Amino acid sequence: MASMTIQNLSPNILQMEYAIQGPVVARAGEIEEELKKGVKKPFKNVIRANIGDAQAMGQPPITFIRQMIACIAYPKLIEEGNFPEDVRKRAKEFLQGCSGGTIGSYSIPHGLGHIRRRVAEYIELRDGVPADWKNVYLSAGATVAIQYCLQLFSDRSNGRKNGILTPVPTYPFYSACYSIFGINLVGYYLDEDSNWDTKIEELERSLVEAQNTCNVRALLVINPGNPTGQVLSRKNIEEIIKFAYKHNLFIIADEVSQDNVYSGGKRFYSFRKVMIELGAPYSSIELVSFTSVSKGYMGESGLRGGWLELNNIQPDVQAQLFKYISAMGTPNVIGQAVIDCVVKPPSPGEPSYDLWLREKTAVLESLNARARLVSESLNAIEGYKCNVVQGALYAFPRINLPPKAVAAAEEANQLPDVFYAYRLLEETGICVVPGSGFGQVPGTYHYRTTILPEYDQLRTILETIRTFHQRFIAQYT
Amino acid sequence: MASMTIQNLSPNILQMEYAIQGPVVARAGEIEEELKKGVKKPFKNVIRANIGDAQAMGQPPITFIRQMIACIAYPKLIEEGNFPEDVRKRAKEFLQGCSGGTIGSYSIPHGLGHIRRRVAEYIELRDGVPADWKNVYLSAGATVAIQYCLQLFSDRSNGRKNGILTPVPTYPFYSACYSIFGINLVGYYLDEDSNWDTKIEELERSLVEAQNTCNVRALLVINPGNPTGQVLSRKNIEEIIKFAYKHNLFIIADEVSQDNVYSGGKRFYSFRKVMIELGAPYSSIELVSFTSVSKGYMGESGLRGGWLELNNIQPDVQAQLFKYISAMGTPNVIGQAVIDCVVKPPSPGEPSYDLWLREKTAVLESLNARARLVSESLNAIEGYKCNVVQGALYAFPRINLPPKAVAAAEEANQLPDVFYAYRLLEETGICVVPGSGFGQVPGTYHYRTTILPEYDQLRTILETIRTFHQRFIAQYT
Repeated sequence: MASMTIQNLSPNILQMEYAIQGPVVARAGEIEEELKKGVKKPFKNVIRANIGDAQAMGQPPITFIRQMIACIAYPKLIEEGNFPEDVRKRAKEFLQGCSGGTIGSYSIPHGLGHIRRRVAEYIELRDGVPADWKNVYLSAGATVAIQYCLQLFSDRSNGRKNGILTPVPTYPFYSACYSIFGINLVGYYLDEDSNWDTKIEELERSLVEAQNTCNVRALLVINPGNPTGQVLSRKNIEEIIKFAYKHNLFIIADEVSQDNVYSGGKRFYSFRKVMIELGAPYSSIELVSFTSVSKGYMGESGLRGGWLELNNIQPDVQAQLFKYISAMGTPNVIGQAVIDCVVKPPSPGEPSYDLWLREKTAVLESLNARARLVSESLNAIEGYKCNVVQGALYAFPRINLPPKAVAAAEEANQLPDVFYAYRLLEETGICVVPGSGFGQVPGTYHYRTTILPEYDQLRTILETIRTFHQRFIAQYT
Repeated sequence: MASMTIQNLSPNILQMEYAIQGPVVARAGEIEEELKKGVKKPFKNVIRANIGDAQAMGQPPITFIRQMIACIAYPKLIEEGNFPEDVRKRAKEFLQGCSGGTIGSYSIPHGLGHIRRRVAEYIELRDGVPADWKNVYLSAGATVAIQYCLQLFSDRSNGRKNGILTPVPTYPFYSACYSIFGINLVGYYLDEDSNWDTKIEELERSLVEAQNTCNVRALLVINPGNPTGQVLSRKNIEEIIKFAYKHNLFIIADEVSQDNVYSGGKRFYSFRKVMIELGAPYSSIELVSFTSVSKGYMGESGLRGGWLELNNIQPDVQAQLFKYISAMGTPNVIGQAVIDCVVKPPSPGEPSYDLWLREKTAVLESLNARARLVSESLNAIEGYKCNVVQGALYAFPRINLPPKAVAAAEEANQLPDVFYAYRLLEETGICVVPGSGFGQVPGTYHYRTTILPEYDQLRTILETIRTFHQRFIAQYT
């Protein structure tokens, strides 16, 4: 008999689900293998529109960042002098802040002090209000920082579980973490009809309903939205903050896509800025916010850099969190070098400035155009409704599925949106994530797609989706 | 009132302790700040002998690894042709295995397929028995892989906790994880008098005593030992495996320092090799083993690369573990490039081979000399007993503390070994970790020091420790 069986492993792992790497995506991997083996398909490649992985889809890296990494990895390149002077200077500075002057030594568990200071300066500049570097923790991507933070709400004691108010649809990494840590997901629906706004009545409804079953301790916001692509207005943020204050909720702000804002009138406001500018009593709300170098214009997903910043956390609680973080291993040093480049990019007049600006602008303008293309093209399909992609890297269109299609899905023992996503994958090679993995109003069907394929490819993809959908509808009407 | 207080945060975080980043080490950081501010001390620098951080202490990186990283970060370097041909070829191969041909894309959550295959080939070559790449998971350092694995034993369900037989002294990362995951530490004392051997009677004693309070499900071994510096003999490994089989225990083998074996007759045997060579029924024991690029001859601690390899895990359990891993974020890509270099170093005849061999040999010979120097010098101090450092990067000497010193510690409200470590730090600047953080037989006192300072500095440090100890003893006798 085995020692570890499906019956006696941690039930929290057993019940955890994660749609982004779920069965549809696993099938995409199988199809890729089949294509390699020469199996005939109605398409040549799988298009992985399931994950916000910019460089995998062809987005070029920022030269300044990559030259910096080359220099710190192999410091002879600093001496040899083939790279721009500002890159070499920055690389030298970076190494001076590492133990032993090398990226081969462990980072301080909370991140290198000189980079934490620069992140605080960046936050200060972004928000126009001071930031303390001791409240910044650098992590190997936002995912790690989010896990550490959520763990604070873990229910290992007896009694009722903690609950976190969580937008629905939501990024399923949160629901996965809640399962692992024993936290209740207290869902509040985003209002699809007003381009995914957060309605305070809905927050109130959800909170009241949940209070019988768990201790609602915190409120999660994802801005810009994942999977919705929505950017919260300043007014909406103010309302949410006032709601959190009224109910003594800790705010967890996922702001990883803060550099990705496309839509005309929209602008990114950090929860921190709005909260502090609202003044007392709101400015004392407990807040943690997350950022990442995986998104933005840099898209350095593979290098794993991110941070959290804490506001108004009780000092003894913060000490506990930092103690915990320091035990769980140290973040990789190169991810911190990427953070360094992002929070303190080349300044006007420095040798790398022009190229950096050109590259950054090209990426953001192109994402802007693609965001528009995606929502306009999907909206033009009969039976589709797609809100404007205001920010982030995703669209979350709603699809009308005829009753016959719903029945066919039931017969196949699949949810209707899963059935649709499988069919799309098998017939076109386009891999998206079914809406049920994110949560959706019952009876509605969606999927998440990224806006990341390059413009011309994206046009083809959207046209393929249109003809697929027409075929699908014809079959089930 | 704050939403998150010391009373309502996760009790598992609250009770967690981690000596490697504990109060003595925190004090070392403060002293460094004081020194910077010009505060007068009887020493010029703090010497961080508390952490196994080779490059921080001056160990040079392996050129082949660093050239490879520079090339994959900035692929123009591949074309420019200033680096050796084999480096450029390997960098190209590596990039071909990344999505979009770039390190900026997300890794597959379990690690890049081509590197997992190479790790399996490496394990096969090391053990002389086949390995399956699908049982290998690449992680951002061994710490991450260890956390994921221990989580399987987490006690979120009701009823009794799970327990893991754990060597004492132990690497406190394990005790920290057990606290977080709600696992009981079932300690078995290593036998200091036989150079830290594992005695089966002691395993039996510990198991029997624990069975009343928890479900003992697994057995942890750390080989080479941390903090003991011991290398298990093949005979001892065989005995441990037979014990595990008898009691249906899952074996967790921390083998991160497998390249660090110094002592004459000693050799590293993986648990996997011995288990398979023992044949049925032992060859079917469930085993997970961990490796890291932070130790060995490469010492790339800051780049975060490691892996776990599974043997005989139930397929449905393995699927659960891999599902869980795939939800928790992806490992950094550069750490995987380091793994690539370590598992497939340059071959004889390739342009980088000679330099690689020279650098590797120099590091290992120097560590060998330092291991000998540390144990011999500490043993020569009256009142010290230090076992031979056979492997890994640590010594764990035992110190006789006179009753007056124990009384003084009590007065200072400190454990005697903590009191001793503080005094050593304040008077000499040498930072070690008190034995109580690792666990020790009651009434005995130890500390862990690394063997990593460069040879001449190490000689000075050891002499400083000798004179400090004489002063300390004189004061308390």
